[in-house]
Amino acid sequence: MSDERRRLLAEKTPFPDDLGDRLHAQLTFLVEIDQLKTVLRQSPLAAADRRENDAEHSWHLAMMVVILSEHSDQPIDVGHTVQLVLVHDLVEIYAGDTPLYDSAAGGDQREREVAAADELFGLLPADQARRMRLLWDEFEERRTPEARFAKAMDRFQPLLLNWMARGGTWRTPGVTADDVRARKAVIGEASASLWRAGRRLIDEGETRGWSRRATPPE
Amino acid sequence: MSDERRRLLAEKTPFPDDLGDRLHAQLTFLVEIDQLKTVLRQSPLAAADRRENDAEHSWHLAMMVVILSEHSDQPIDVGHTVQLVLVHDLVEIYAGDTPLYDSAAGGDQREREVAAADELFGLLPADQARRMRLLWDEFEERRTPEARFAKAMDRFQPLLLNWMARGGTWRTPGVTADDVRARKAVIGEASASLWRAGRRLIDEGETRGWSRRATPPE
Repeated sequence: MSDERRRLLAEKTPFPDDLGDRLHAQLTFLVEIDQLKTVLRQSPLAAADRRENDAEHSWHLAMMVVILSEHSDQPIDVGHTVQLVLVHDLVEIYAGDTPLYDSAAGGDQREREVAAADELFGLLPADQARRMRLLWDEFEERRTPEARFAKAMDRFQPLLLNWMARGGTWRTPGVTADDVRARKAVIGEASASLWRAGRRLIDEGETRGWSRRATPPE
Repeated sequence: MSDERRRLLAEKTPFPDDLGDRLHAQLTFLVEIDQLKTVLRQSPLAAADRRENDAEHSWHLAMMVVILSEHSDQPIDVGHTVQLVLVHDLVEIYAGDTPLYDSAAGGDQREREVAAADELFGLLPADQARRMRLLWDEFEERRTPEARFAKAMDRFQPLLLNWMARGGTWRTPGVTADDVRARKAVIGEASASLWRAGRRLIDEGETRGWSRRATPPE
């Protein structure tokens, strides 16, 4: 990390200094995370001809948790799972999005994201900074049923968008249908029925030529 | 409502017909609501030079619930309140956004939105359609502490964005600082401390000339 302090978004139009320290810190954080709306992902929208951003993606995952929670193999707390997906991509505001099929960028991803978490969550009062970090760690570690389901939604949602786009990022050069199946298999850790559906879409996409076959036919 | 059936987004790339009726309906709904990302609001982003869309707005409200819930005058269930804000603008996919300071469009807003709710939530299995409608009704009626807090966030978030933009929609022709205070007073039904902060920002904005004074000085 550089010694130079990052210029915060809220500094563009500083708040009056009599709001109280705690609320001032909370509003500074809430303005800073407006930047999640500018972090572009690889996935194409179904509803418009442009790429999705992280805020839209996070909202969509949250709706998927609300609608699909019954498919979890283990009972989950929906309200808690929703919070996991709302928060899971915040670190990308400072660390950037790492595309699923970009193995080079994956190398120092964890290091960059931990530094981003320290800096971004550190804008909040200490108790809330700790809670944000706990939510993010829980998502990343996938040890709870809620975290496994949240992660499954994070993989299932772009799968839906790729299906709608008749390929989307499945067409990334060098990526095969087997690569897609391998990257998406984590869905099966949370839900056998959703992974069955996900595989069905990937297989059908391969049959239709929307992804590259692993071994070219003889 | 027209007799002609709306063409659904999922019909562009139909799902295989062996996913099971219930999951098929759920995925059709989840693809259809991708359109929330294309419903533009009046509010300017803090992080980029463009207007906000409803999906970004809904995600931002959900984060505000997570971070600001301690300011609610009554105890609230955070997970439930988050679900209220995730769902509250879905009807705008078919009914469109009605700007806060547009009193003409407000006339048939309720009628248009109820028709939109019937049609959109009707894509889901019946039990989930009912649950979505209950969430939306709860938000609109503001009879629970959770709904009052959700509504307060819906008014407080654009206030923050307008502050960051040094005016934003406060500069709408014909709108005065008193109009802004009147439209935002609903924040006070959920949180005395947040309404105090909100009023402070509106008052300071008026002082700085970012909104029009109610009565011109003599």
